[in-house]
Amino acid sequence: MGGDHAPAPEVEGALAAVGERDLEVILVGDEARLRAQLAGRSHPRLQIRHATQVIAMDDAPSVAVKSKKDSSMRVCFDLAKRGEAQAVLSAGNSGAMMACGLFVSKRLPGVERPGIFTVAPTVDGSHCVVLDVGANTEVKPTTLAQFAVMGSAYARLILGKERPRVAVLANGEEPSKGTDLTREAYRMLAQPARKDFEFRGYAEGRDVFFGDFDVVVTDGYTGNVALKTFEGAVRAVFDMLKSEVSKRPRAKLGAFLMKPAFEALKRRIEPDEFGGAPLLGVTAVVIICHGNSSATAIKNGIFAADRYVGTGVQPAIVDAIARHRPLWEPAVQAPAKVAAE
Amino acid sequence: MGGDHAPAPEVEGALAAVGERDLEVILVGDEARLRAQLAGRSHPRLQIRHATQVIAMDDAPSVAVKSKKDSSMRVCFDLAKRGEAQAVLSAGNSGAMMACGLFVSKRLPGVERPGIFTVAPTVDGSHCVVLDVGANTEVKPTTLAQFAVMGSAYARLILGKERPRVAVLANGEEPSKGTDLTREAYRMLAQPARKDFEFRGYAEGRDVFFGDFDVVVTDGYTGNVALKTFEGAVRAVFDMLKSEVSKRPRAKLGAFLMKPAFEALKRRIEPDEFGGAPLLGVTAVVIICHGNSSATAIKNGIFAADRYVGTGVQPAIVDAIARHRPLWEPAVQAPAKVAAE
Repeated sequence: MGGDHAPAPEVEGALAAVGERDLEVILVGDEARLRAQLAGRSHPRLQIRHATQVIAMDDAPSVAVKSKKDSSMRVCFDLAKRGEAQAVLSAGNSGAMMACGLFVSKRLPGVERPGIFTVAPTVDGSHCVVLDVGANTEVKPTTLAQFAVMGSAYARLILGKERPRVAVLANGEEPSKGTDLTREAYRMLAQPARKDFEFRGYAEGRDVFFGDFDVVVTDGYTGNVALKTFEGAVRAVFDMLKSEVSKRPRAKLGAFLMKPAFEALKRRIEPDEFGGAPLLGVTAVVIICHGNSSATAIKNGIFAADRYVGTGVQPAIVDAIARHRPLWEPAVQAPAKVAAE
Repeated sequence: MGGDHAPAPEVEGALAAVGERDLEVILVGDEARLRAQLAGRSHPRLQIRHATQVIAMDDAPSVAVKSKKDSSMRVCFDLAKRGEAQAVLSAGNSGAMMACGLFVSKRLPGVERPGIFTVAPTVDGSHCVVLDVGANTEVKPTTLAQFAVMGSAYARLILGKERPRVAVLANGEEPSKGTDLTREAYRMLAQPARKDFEFRGYAEGRDVFFGDFDVVVTDGYTGNVALKTFEGAVRAVFDMLKSEVSKRPRAKLGAFLMKPAFEALKRRIEPDEFGGAPLLGVTAVVIICHGNSSATAIKNGIFAADRYVGTGVQPAIVDAIARHRPLWEPAVQAPAKVAAE
């Protein structure tokens, strides 16, 4: 109920999802509005769970946790907590989603801060996991090291990268670049420990798209700026191209002939195709969709949640965080016993 | 001599520049190599000034200032210091350029830190000044406030924006977003002082390209990530489009018909057309070009330097920094005298 156009894309996306794949969806929200949108349609694997309140986009994140306890978002997290659902999806207030993740679901064992991530398309037809893109504006070096471990678990299980290539986002490739934060994270990740991933040092903003890295970690402030710069750049460039085409009749014909290529490109780069940004590091599987998600985006978000649950990303994260602990918590050395004479 | 392909693009760009406009260029570097590239060509407004050393891309910035005193870069700054040149341009080591700016040219009165900026293209056919994009990875709120003032002076004189609309780059529009740094800069810039610019609060990464802002300020770490994300996104999207086109014969014909539109787009977004990134806030006019600049980029960089000098950006910055000082240095209030009885 919390998305910009709710509940239309949510209901249509859920109907399409249960129609295409063997999964169950519980639509949580105002029953009358949900039924109105369903307009008589039903499916044996689609249920409705009534909730009287809605978290608005401008509600403080704490509202979902403290006052609107019968909000559709909060009820989703309660269902997950009781094991009645295995994943939560919403196109609503992402700050409130984060708050519910932290205070209703709680963090996975050993996780310092959850992170929201996105997968950027790469020119070689694959993807690069970028996190955090908004959950934590200010983080510690240990948080970036944990993001590297969590992102790698995801890249291995969902993107099929056997030994993910990991980097810290910075303003240059040399280890001397970056900030105090990134240099300390670099030092932690470069330790010669047994790692499930290959640490490749720093990546620059442009490197994300060219297939040399599978996971790039950063703080949520910088990650959010980078994500939105990418979205803005793509939209701006195509707006400019359209205006240049509209001045040239031959180019208009050209654009018509290129339509299938443009559509294929759109499928490669549109966020709709990825189905939202997962929140990594809390006990529930949480998928945060854009506020203005289409029914297709919601459907793909549901598929992403299904894949996430099915491939066991959660236990893999718990395991990886435990095994990589020496990266951010160096073993305390017992004082040396010296026999001197 | 410090660029990736020096001195070919530098010599060709300089020859083209003096051929097209009434300005003078002093080529600084190894005379034999410069003459070899000139291959007998000359121009009354093109001089050569011999220098025995070169700053390499991997030299520490301090090398230019401390040890390689007869390097081509350092000699350029010395010429500017003695008034024998009005501007310095290089496609070499940008850290060394910054060091020369700080320690040879020195800062303009009142300026805390110089900033390197870029102009991003906007869909309405104009530009947005973004700074800092790399000079200072960690800054203070006062530095961001000064960047706003310096960027506005540039936008007014060079881009013709009468009252530039200024924003701080952040991860959302609400004043509660951002980091401690951006929130404090926001507070300073939002003060109801007499300002030459209109402060519009926060801008997100995507907002840079849509014509709602003329100046967007950020720290050099985030600005560099955003700039390179933009460059990478554009290149990646066109690489992907090319690969989709190559699979489709009709689309290939379409791309051929669209060629003039693609070329017009390229002119709008290519960094070559802007001619490098100026370093704002030091006594010399300094233009930093990409290491792999083409002759066209060098030529346009020389034109940018000429415009910069001709429109009086430097005195405008000195004046604006002095007048806006209350934004970052609130007047000390004299203790109140209270007459009580």
